[in-house]
Amino acid sequence: MKTSIGAKTFVFPTPVFVVGAYDINGRPNIMTAAWGGICCSTPPCVAVSMRKATYTFDCIVRNKAFTVSLLSAEQAAVADYAGTVSGHSVDKFAGAGLTAQKSELVNAPIPAEFPVTLECELFKTVEIGLHTQFIGKIIDIKVLEEVLDERGRVNIDKLKPFAYDPESASYYATGAKFGKAFSIGASISKKNE
Amino acid sequence: MKTSIGAKTFVFPTPVFVVGAYDINGRPNIMTAAWGGICCSTPPCVAVSMRKATYTFDCIVRNKAFTVSLLSAEQAAVADYAGTVSGHSVDKFAGAGLTAQKSELVNAPIPAEFPVTLECELFKTVEIGLHTQFIGKIIDIKVLEEVLDERGRVNIDKLKPFAYDPESASYYATGAKFGKAFSIGASISKKNE
Repeated sequence: MKTSIGAKTFVFPTPVFVVGAYDINGRPNIMTAAWGGICCSTPPCVAVSMRKATYTFDCIVRNKAFTVSLLSAEQAAVADYAGTVSGHSVDKFAGAGLTAQKSELVNAPIPAEFPVTLECELFKTVEIGLHTQFIGKIIDIKVLEEVLDERGRVNIDKLKPFAYDPESASYYATGAKFGKAFSIGASISKKNE
Repeated sequence: MKTSIGAKTFVFPTPVFVVGAYDINGRPNIMTAAWGGICCSTPPCVAVSMRKATYTFDCIVRNKAFTVSLLSAEQAAVADYAGTVSGHSVDKFAGAGLTAQKSELVNAPIPAEFPVTLECELFKTVEIGLHTQFIGKIIDIKVLEEVLDERGRVNIDKLKPFAYDPESASYYATGAKFGKAFSIGASISKKNE
């Protein structure tokens, strides 16, 4: 029997997205967002939600572009820092010792030190409530070569990414690969044939 | 230096959501979706994207309600099965040996065997492209007691959830908790004071 834990924002895994954008002065900024995920295959789109009060919100509205970076667990403190101080008062690139590279495809900064960065054009803006959802069309993904496999795909065991747990407000490492998708369910399909 | 891997739907972690809904005949159905995530804190909302061709799409449009279940890695084959066969031709509750309980709060089924189920009212529908995004207002979350901690919160180490990797089309287990959010970044903030 299941018990009620109330209406709250819990799912797992929740991603740790570091969102990059330029401010009104052209200064690069980052913020961390856990409310988001891929939302469409064609065009390829990623959704990121943020409050209007964030410094990044106006940056995205103005530039109609942003980046979404995925970090390794070793960089979790940088993601946490970017999620706990505001670009209103702090230069987070300087504070975290990051290098901003201008994307050649969208008007948004690519933090050189982060292993994976999605370059996004603002595609749709969805007002939900406290959070506004920015849907970004993924124009390209830039990746540090050391996290790629021999076929040029991101290798999770090399990237060593992490997840956020809203229930305990904690970060979790990624464990082992254990099954092939569109495959391990075949045992159930076959049983029913 | 970063290299381009093209415009594709890659982020990690990607969740494995098992979405439940009733069909036009009141029969419970489930499908698996990896494109989604929490999208607003107030009201608490979760987004799930699906193609119009899925059996579940019309079920959600009709009932304006759905459930989102999180499974343990031990149940990954069930999630994979629910993502690879269609409710058009198969009774997936029967096929996977699941028990459908009617939610008392929304017009959608709760699979009794899944440890965590979010009960959602359809709040917004966002047309994006191949995928349509359903934004569900989380009315309650029902949880099996064995995955709760002593304070009544979901414990990730008991739930043992898993993630989907779009790059390798594989499932990954959850690793160890390694850091407190809104805390481990303080070392960087302090360095800059």
